[in-house]
Amino acid sequence: MTPPARGFPPEEFRARTRKAQHLMGEAGLSALLLTTPPEVCYYTGFLTQFWESPTRPWFVIVPERGDPVAVIPTIGASLMGRTWITDIRTWTSPNYADDGIGLLAEALRELVQEGGRIGVADGMESHLRMPLAGFSRLKAALDSRDISSDAAITRRLRLVKSDAEIEKIRRATGIADRAFARVGEIARAGVPLGEVSRRFQGLCLAEGADWVPYLASAAGAGGYGDVISPATEAALVPGDVMMLDTGLVWDGYFCDFDRNYSVGPAAQAVREGHARLVEASAAAFDAAKPGATIRDLFQAMRPFIGSSGDTGRLGHGLGLQLTEWPSILAEDETVLEAGMVLTLEPLVEVSPGKILVHEENIVIRPTGAEYLSQPQNAEIRVV
Amino acid sequence: MTPPARGFPPEEFRARTRKAQHLMGEAGLSALLLTTPPEVCYYTGFLTQFWESPTRPWFVIVPERGDPVAVIPTIGASLMGRTWITDIRTWTSPNYADDGIGLLAEALRELVQEGGRIGVADGMESHLRMPLAGFSRLKAALDSRDISSDAAITRRLRLVKSDAEIEKIRRATGIADRAFARVGEIARAGVPLGEVSRRFQGLCLAEGADWVPYLASAAGAGGYGDVISPATEAALVPGDVMMLDTGLVWDGYFCDFDRNYSVGPAAQAVREGHARLVEASAAAFDAAKPGATIRDLFQAMRPFIGSSGDTGRLGHGLGLQLTEWPSILAEDETVLEAGMVLTLEPLVEVSPGKILVHEENIVIRPTGAEYLSQPQNAEIRVV
Repeated sequence: MTPPARGFPPEEFRARTRKAQHLMGEAGLSALLLTTPPEVCYYTGFLTQFWESPTRPWFVIVPERGDPVAVIPTIGASLMGRTWITDIRTWTSPNYADDGIGLLAEALRELVQEGGRIGVADGMESHLRMPLAGFSRLKAALDSRDISSDAAITRRLRLVKSDAEIEKIRRATGIADRAFARVGEIARAGVPLGEVSRRFQGLCLAEGADWVPYLASAAGAGGYGDVISPATEAALVPGDVMMLDTGLVWDGYFCDFDRNYSVGPAAQAVREGHARLVEASAAAFDAAKPGATIRDLFQAMRPFIGSSGDTGRLGHGLGLQLTEWPSILAEDETVLEAGMVLTLEPLVEVSPGKILVHEENIVIRPTGAEYLSQPQNAEIRVV
Repeated sequence: MTPPARGFPPEEFRARTRKAQHLMGEAGLSALLLTTPPEVCYYTGFLTQFWESPTRPWFVIVPERGDPVAVIPTIGASLMGRTWITDIRTWTSPNYADDGIGLLAEALRELVQEGGRIGVADGMESHLRMPLAGFSRLKAALDSRDISSDAAITRRLRLVKSDAEIEKIRRATGIADRAFARVGEIARAGVPLGEVSRRFQGLCLAEGADWVPYLASAAGAGGYGDVISPATEAALVPGDVMMLDTGLVWDGYFCDFDRNYSVGPAAQAVREGHARLVEASAAAFDAAKPGATIRDLFQAMRPFIGSSGDTGRLGHGLGLQLTEWPSILAEDETVLEAGMVLTLEPLVEVSPGKILVHEENIVIRPTGAEYLSQPQNAEIRVV
């Protein structure tokens, strides 16, 4: 399969920018100030693992009119210069006296009229990626301009993916599908879970992942206790259920789904629990059509899993981040639209303290849902 | 080589907490509020890749007296319960009405007397990992208690590593050393840099990395343009200099160093540039003794690289993060102490727009520096 093209044409970034500017007008905002990797990447295409270093802040401004303006450390000028962004202002960072705040304030004073409002992401799932003391200095340097909520504009735009974005996520899920199909090569009774974890990441890379920012793994007799712990060095034993949940990245876009493996023949309760999870995600898949709500997906899964899922969500959005808005909760009334990419992630408690979790990735199309991950059948995989 | 034990004994976490509490007393702080992965991990040992999901905030409070208190989503209760922390308060997250703020405010009102000051990290290299709107609600719910700067207490403590921390970093650097020694297996003329990048990450995992959050790579004739871009799919050609810079993790601790490879015989300018970089880092290594300053390291490297390094730093701290305080800059007057772990990272411009970067990891010992990475010799490696 030929991979999709990397990056996006400038028209796609320009369209995102224009949509944001339209919503900014509605919200009475004169600019958006972006500080985090997914926000910056969404409007500019600036893609790097260098965000792993917390040292330097990075800023992009979406003004009322025109294209975004980057205010960034010099070390990023070359890479930003290869995106569609042309107005790139840099400072030598780290700078102990003023790490970009002066330059950023100057740009905002230029781009935003006096009395104007500048939106920053402040709602659920958002962070401000700059030092708080710098944020205070920035606010003081804006004269009559005000910083307020971004009205979730970027979050709302990112909720609906373009076809090009969907193809990147499909590429990522395909890589994970192939890696999951090869787990028999690396996992068997006697192998430490930590070793499986390292080798599974290797399989993801061998199958084409750019990088693997997330791998949760768990194993236990008849189920596991949680799904966020790093792998231990305990060896797999017959009767264990092993779960691998990967968020690998291709060209900036994540997949996020898991597969369960029984080490040797599975117990009856495990087989039944697994089948119920697959039925649950299939029911949510069937309910996932434009016009339905996120709540409908929750309700579709609920009969198969009982109250097991009532202490958390049963899936979420997916894209530039491992998890994105919204959460599949009974109280989420988000209306589904074509282009939304979601994970369906039911959970069932097989016995006290022993859970199984199953996850698929789907995209909403005009007439219903489409699987991005290759859907798992009811029978649990065996190694 | 037997790896060091994973985790730390409770005494180490308790000692960190007591030191923080001593500094809190000096700074007039009644509590620290922690929100980011390295802060939370430093005091609790809570280690997970689940931070990759931006959905949920996580909080730890270091009170004036006693042990830290965790205020976290239910999904983390099992893992936090396996650390030394015993006071763990949880809420079902995500919660659209109140995602932990009420529970956190209640805990802070209980642990901090009226009029007391609560410190949050606000200086360089810090972020607040929670939604800004939630932070505003929190401040309003604290009655007479105030949130102010943490006086960089956690940053100051993390600057000096314990022997157990140093052994974890040594383990990480050793894994990278072995992976770098195997680059000849995966890189040669004709292979796309992207393929080298994926396979090098695989080598890091095969040699024992838990995960590989950072790999920068670059290649170009006689040098490269920057060191933060993701790999392209362009094939290596004879005369290229290829650079791989990895931040891999073992038990939560990073290494961060690079190696350069000439594809076929290296040009004279490349050989000389590389030798100068190695001389520069060796000079800084010789200067790195308790009582010397970070500026001394910068000055030691400066003669070998000319003005090439004047637009950035020449190294930094290393530990729970890929890059940590301080930065090796002419203006940094931090006094070196035994236990500090640093990278030495000189840069030289070989020809206009073509740079070479070299990096080593060292630890300061009572009588001088010790290499954690296996130091590179003057001759550039050839593939």
